[in-house]
Amino acid sequence: MTYELFYWPTIQGRGEFVRLALEQAGVEYTDVARSEGPELGVSAMLELVERKDLAHPSFAPPFLRDGDLVVGQTANILLYLGSRHGLAPRSERGRLWTHQVQLTIMDLVTEVHDTHHPVSVDLYYEDQKPEAARRAKSLRESRMPKYLQWFERILERNGKTGQRIGRELTYADLSLFQVVEGLNYSFPTAASRALTDAPLVSTLSEAVTQQPRIAAYLESDWRIPFSEDDVFRYYPELDG
Amino acid sequence: MTYELFYWPTIQGRGEFVRLALEQAGVEYTDVARSEGPELGVSAMLELVERKDLAHPSFAPPFLRDGDLVVGQTANILLYLGSRHGLAPRSERGRLWTHQVQLTIMDLVTEVHDTHHPVSVDLYYEDQKPEAARRAKSLRESRMPKYLQWFERILERNGKTGQRIGRELTYADLSLFQVVEGLNYSFPTAASRALTDAPLVSTLSEAVTQQPRIAAYLESDWRIPFSEDDVFRYYPELDG
Repeated sequence: MTYELFYWPTIQGRGEFVRLALEQAGVEYTDVARSEGPELGVSAMLELVERKDLAHPSFAPPFLRDGDLVVGQTANILLYLGSRHGLAPRSERGRLWTHQVQLTIMDLVTEVHDTHHPVSVDLYYEDQKPEAARRAKSLRESRMPKYLQWFERILERNGKTGQRIGRELTYADLSLFQVVEGLNYSFPTAASRALTDAPLVSTLSEAVTQQPRIAAYLESDWRIPFSEDDVFRYYPELDG
Repeated sequence: MTYELFYWPTIQGRGEFVRLALEQAGVEYTDVARSEGPELGVSAMLELVERKDLAHPSFAPPFLRDGDLVVGQTANILLYLGSRHGLAPRSERGRLWTHQVQLTIMDLVTEVHDTHHPVSVDLYYEDQKPEAARRAKSLRESRMPKYLQWFERILERNGKTGQRIGRELTYADLSLFQVVEGLNYSFPTAASRALTDAPLVSTLSEAVTQQPRIAAYLESDWRIPFSEDDVFRYYPELDG
């Protein structure tokens, strides 16, 4: 059975955390909203969201269909995929820890999103720029360093590898790479400064890019570039 | 082994979602930061956060200790407790769905928090009132109704009971009750309006209060009252 990923077709967004796991797993998947044909495209995604006979509709994309199972919430999708494709430890303890790190990564992603949308997702960035300036300052000076220092600390404590969160590569490592990429794109000055104090985070991020499947994916046209319609946006006035 | 819950002692906060699950499970637990004695109190919590030999430190409270296992992130703690105490379905499908709902509830909790802290958690509400007014308007008019309609829809589709998210009571039902309580406290006018269109959500919330252990807990002094130091705060100027 081929997985079907449902996510907005023109951005990385939260769907990218799932894409990275699917790519690393080396499994076939249909990126439904990015595909053309019957029962494909954005309309197919919106149709599935609205389908009244779907017992478990998701609040928002991304969601993943595996046969008649539909799973939503990014971290929950990764929980599901992780245990199936060797992207999470087998032990309950290891699985819980990997998931805990993932949930903390998702919290940071939400905080990054809110730097350009501190007031409302229904408004444009241009309609909330003064609020965004204050929120971004807080991210740059307080929150981003705090998160990165936490990631650094957990990598330090995983003495076994130094380049991974756990013993083997997991979806949380892939996600941490994605966040580092996103921070470097959206806050080049502030992220560069904060990462100076988090060398293991940078090392992990670099190590992820050396994974053959991830390397091939990142070099392919299939990887959507960062943009200012996405979660990670580069607005020079918010960096510094 | 008695569970040890680590959370701030004077607020419900995110710890309350864990407390409700522990209460419903009927298990013994030590609410460490609310207890007095050696290795108890807030200092014991902060000490555990800072302990350098802790392999899996949490980014923030709440976290739960079960012997030598420490689990953090509210939804992750509930994932752990749910499977141990009959507060989640046994099937993988059911467990994933319960967790998905929980993660969506946590997203709403974050959005509620950000109504009084739209700019920075390091500043007081009084230092971000104009931003809070705009953010709260968005919550009242757009986000809160959207979330409540989603909860209503998933309850409608669970034809079996109408009063629960799944077949049996789960931690997600307890959490949805807590959110409804919190919204009614913090946005009495807006929540009352939004809940008019979500009768099943109100019914579920009421049904949770009828659970004997939950009822006893809510009536006890052990339940911390809502306050303006908490996640759900009543600021009349943000309601309407």
